[in-house]
Amino acid sequence: MENPTAVLLLSCPDQKGIVASISGFIFQHEGNILHAAQHTAQPGNILFMRIEWDLAGFAIPREGIKEAFRPLAERFRMKWNIRFSDEIPRVAIFVSRHVHCFHDLLLRHLMGEFRGVFPLVISNHPDLQPLAEQFGLAFRYYPITQENKAEQEEREMEELERQRIDLIILARYMQVLSPAFVNRYKNRIINIHHSFLPAFAGGKPYQQAYERGVKIIGATSHYVTEALDDGPIIAQDVIEISHRDSINDIKIKGKDIERVVLAKAVRLHLADRILVYGSKTIVFE
Amino acid sequence: MENPTAVLLLSCPDQKGIVASISGFIFQHEGNILHAAQHTAQPGNILFMRIEWDLAGFAIPREGIKEAFRPLAERFRMKWNIRFSDEIPRVAIFVSRHVHCFHDLLLRHLMGEFRGVFPLVISNHPDLQPLAEQFGLAFRYYPITQENKAEQEEREMEELERQRIDLIILARYMQVLSPAFVNRYKNRIINIHHSFLPAFAGGKPYQQAYERGVKIIGATSHYVTEALDDGPIIAQDVIEISHRDSINDIKIKGKDIERVVLAKAVRLHLADRILVYGSKTIVFE
Amino acid sequence: MENPTAVLLLSCPDQKGIVASISGFIFQHEGNILHAAQHTAQPGNILFMRIEWDLAGFAIPREGIKEAFRPLAERFRMKWNIRFSDEIPRVAIFVSRHVHCFHDLLLRHLMGEFRGVFPLVISNHPDLQPLAEQFGLAFRYYPITQENKAEQEEREMEELERQRIDLIILARYMQVLSPAFVNRYKNRIINIHHSFLPAFAGGKPYQQAYERGVKIIGATSHYVTEALDDGPIIAQDVIEISHRDSINDIKIKGKDIERVVLAKAVRLHLADRILVYGSKTIVFE
Amino acid sequence: MENPTAVLLLSCPDQKGIVASISGFIFQHEGNILHAAQHTAQPGNILFMRIEWDLAGFAIPREGIKEAFRPLAERFRMKWNIRFSDEIPRVAIFVSRHVHCFHDLLLRHLMGEFRGVFPLVISNHPDLQPLAEQFGLAFRYYPITQENKAEQEEREMEELERQRIDLIILARYMQVLSPAFVNRYKNRIINIHHSFLPAFAGGKPYQQAYERGVKIIGATSHYVTEALDDGPIIAQDVIEISHRDSINDIKIKGKDIERVVLAKAVRLHLADRILVYGSKTIVFE
Repeated sequence: MENPTAVLLLSCPDQKGIVASISGFIFQHEGNILHAAQHTAQPGNILFMRIEWDLAGFAIPREGIKEAFRPLAERFRMKWNIRFSDEIPRVAIFVSRHVHCFHDLLLRHLMGEFRGVFPLVISNHPDLQPLAEQFGLAFRYYPITQENKAEQEEREMEELERQRIDLIILARYMQVLSPAFVNRYKNRIINIHHSFLPAFAGGKPYQQAYERGVKIIGATSHYVTEALDDGPIIAQDVIEISHRDSINDIKIKGKDIERVVLAKAVRLHLADRILVYGSKTIVFE
Repeated sequence: MENPTAVLLLSCPDQKGIVASISGFIFQHEGNILHAAQHTAQPGNILFMRIEWDLAGFAIPREGIKEAFRPLAERFRMKWNIRFSDEIPRVAIFVSRHVHCFHDLLLRHLMGEFRGVFPLVISNHPDLQPLAEQFGLAFRYYPITQENKAEQEEREMEELERQRIDLIILARYMQVLSPAFVNRYKNRIINIHHSFLPAFAGGKPYQQAYERGVKIIGATSHYVTEALDDGPIIAQDVIEISHRDSINDIKIKGKDIERVVLAKAVRLHLADRILVYGSKTIVFE
Repeated sequence: MENPTAVLLLSCPDQKGIVASISGFIFQHEGNILHAAQHTAQPGNILFMRIEWDLAGFAIPREGIKEAFRPLAERFRMKWNIRFSDEIPRVAIFVSRHVHCFHDLLLRHLMGEFRGVFPLVISNHPDLQPLAEQFGLAFRYYPITQENKAEQEEREMEELERQRIDLIILARYMQVLSPAFVNRYKNRIINIHHSFLPAFAGGKPYQQAYERGVKIIGATSHYVTEALDDGPIIAQDVIEISHRDSINDIKIKGKDIERVVLAKAVRLHLADRILVYGSKTIVFE
Repeated sequence: MENPTAVLLLSCPDQKGIVASISGFIFQHEGNILHAAQHTAQPGNILFMRIEWDLAGFAIPREGIKEAFRPLAERFRMKWNIRFSDEIPRVAIFVSRHVHCFHDLLLRHLMGEFRGVFPLVISNHPDLQPLAEQFGLAFRYYPITQENKAEQEEREMEELERQRIDLIILARYMQVLSPAFVNRYKNRIINIHHSFLPAFAGGKPYQQAYERGVKIIGATSHYVTEALDDGPIIAQDVIEISHRDSINDIKIKGKDIERVVLAKAVRLHLADRILVYGSKTIVFE
């Protein structure tokens, strides 16, 4: 196994000395930087940085690292976070009836593509229970109606708390989450939308694409915000179609890119490679 | 040189015997079919067909072919057209100030990529006159204001008539054509829009893309209709961008796909490979 | 359910009247052509054609169609085949230890992407038995050594006969099939090679790609011939990599395109959309 | 105009403190880091870094920067180089008869895509002289035979010296350069090869691709080394083809990606974004 590492993700107003101060902090305490990437966004002059270092031989004990770093962070007015590679995130998957994204996530998890554990599946339909259990995941069924929605979301959030979930994946989950829910898990809910956003937001995007006669269809993974299909985009991909493709052909082609785009977003998030700034993402690939 | 060929493009309600009748017509008159492609669209049950045959040895003299085919066309209620490969279409390019698409078309023309002649450039700015003339094209300058627009379009259409123009290419032409103009050249005006339509229709699509934080940008070539950026799409392409790309980087990347997508549409149109049906295209590649 | 259809795939020396004769044959017997595509290859002047028609109302009973068509086929010296859409092909999957392509095929089968049944899995390792059985497929384990190879292949072929298998998919099967085996199933064995052939044929293609420092990796599905990794190519796809990608990252990225490319080849084959001519394929998409 | 910047490119054995030392050096002298990217390659444990800082307000006068940095470089055994963004590289283009890449470079230069000046064109054919001069570039014609090759290369190198050329672009130049020439301009000659290397190295790659029946063709830009088509790859791209594409169609499609891939490599080189290590490139995009 690889040594545990620390990952620092930060943004702050740009000024002289930030990189030097951070790398100096790591070096003074005997850390070896493994990856560093920095980006300054114009306009606004905001610096974004991801820096990862080896914890082997690092002079500050792990539980003191955040405290030791705080003065530096305050001096540069950073928004920041430090995570350790051996603290494995806990992930819940929300599904409805579509199996392809769900199945794909399970397979990738099985093959070790994600730094995460997947204890929990939540659904508004019972259909995928056997599949979830076959892969050893707990399945919770919360049917949603207009009347019981608030109450059911309450129960879902309790379950998420109980399971100490860090990340929620909406793997073609066909319910809109309430603002309260979204805000509780801000920048921690990843959705897959089966269009090339902002084109064809809302319902039935493949049908919309078919009717408009586009020559390429897409898929978009994004963080969920209160406004539907409008959150910060993490990854997108596209595939060519032609007049020969029926709606059904388009759906089959689309499933391939949905799976790839959702998995990419999940992988990046779990590797602490995404910073959200305003309505956009900075992705350190 | 290759033998001249005839290309029949048609659409009609599907029924038994259409392919047999058309291919029978060609065979009875000693024609050899070089390419045939057929597509039936659901819903609507409309048949689309492109069929190309060698004119060498064809028993009907060229000037009688359309007349001879007419009874068949009427029997199946076809919308149809027959063109001959040695009747070279005449193309006018409309430009403003952007040079990349214009230049690219000229270079491709020089390299023999298009079945067409390019006698005429029309612009609302004088900037590209030297380049046009360097390549031997006549350049007509019609500055457009809100006041003189109708009158200037009138003069443009006269020039297009005089030059017997078959196809108009808007190579980043920054004026909206009037409905009267558009309808005169229905399905014979090709525009390049620098976004992945229907996303980012209207002005400044790269700016819109930058602000939305998309991870892929696109370009779309389409026939011009009265509704802006809403005509039948002929070709689209995309390219990846990231948070590192400034607006200027996006523009540079976008230019590459604009050029490719516009050239593709022009090539397909000039090879009689496009049928327009409703708001969509059938492209026989 | 859709009506059953007949698909005629053929190649023959090009001459006048082929399309007319075939479409005439269908029309005379009251058939409605649903799809027709034709291609003439230069040099060689060989015509390739795929034509599909509705069997509902077709005047020749199904068991007499081939016989009725034979005189026409002989007149034009065709290589040809007629298949019926409701005669479902039987598919065997060969696997070793890699799970991703195997799993992907099963999932797509479950979602109805393939016109085929999948009764049988054959492997030289026992590892994937539980997964195969979980999806309801029979699993046959034939460990292969240098000594027992001929004998084990004999047993495999018996099993394939017994199960009346029409198509074999090598889903990352890590054994080279003998010429005798390959020839028995000529153009009916589809392999996935994890490189952009002809680059990186042979073993460890990702390692080779990594060492050469390419910026794009690929995957290739092809029919298996006696010469290793040299059969007619059906489909290819690629994905970008960079210096940041380790061998392991490359493998993860590659798996995504392996799955898509293999599935595409299988889908095309099962829909009778592929003609093999010499060392190439004609793919009627 | 933007402020001038300094770009440091380096590689060295990885150890603790490198990033801290370099960023500390810049910060101590009042420099503001604009971009920093670092990569550590496994196996070998080599660190690669590109760091760019604003020269406005930098405390060391420009002519002293390299001297001031040298002790640090020696301490970490770096291979390194510092360049200033306002010292514009001088570029020579080598051409034969193909116009597309040459024309494309000129157009991009005109549109300001490259940080470079293009004073000189060298060719073994006179054909492109008018085009070169139309764009204001000096054109030198050195016809090459087996007998005069060494002598002509000598004259070319003299001309390159006289013009103080920093980078040579082989824009489909159809002569193999001698080892002496190549070594004089090591990692400063960029070639475009019209295949997806290492597939189809050598002559007539499109013909080779056509005969093999691949479904995707490619283009590769690379630094020239003594071994033909074997230098470090900078950029690659691909485009789909099908059985319908003749050799001529393939060439037309290929030209589009040749242009894009060559331009990308030139842009990256001129922006000091490429490090060569062994037979590979590290590209800081």
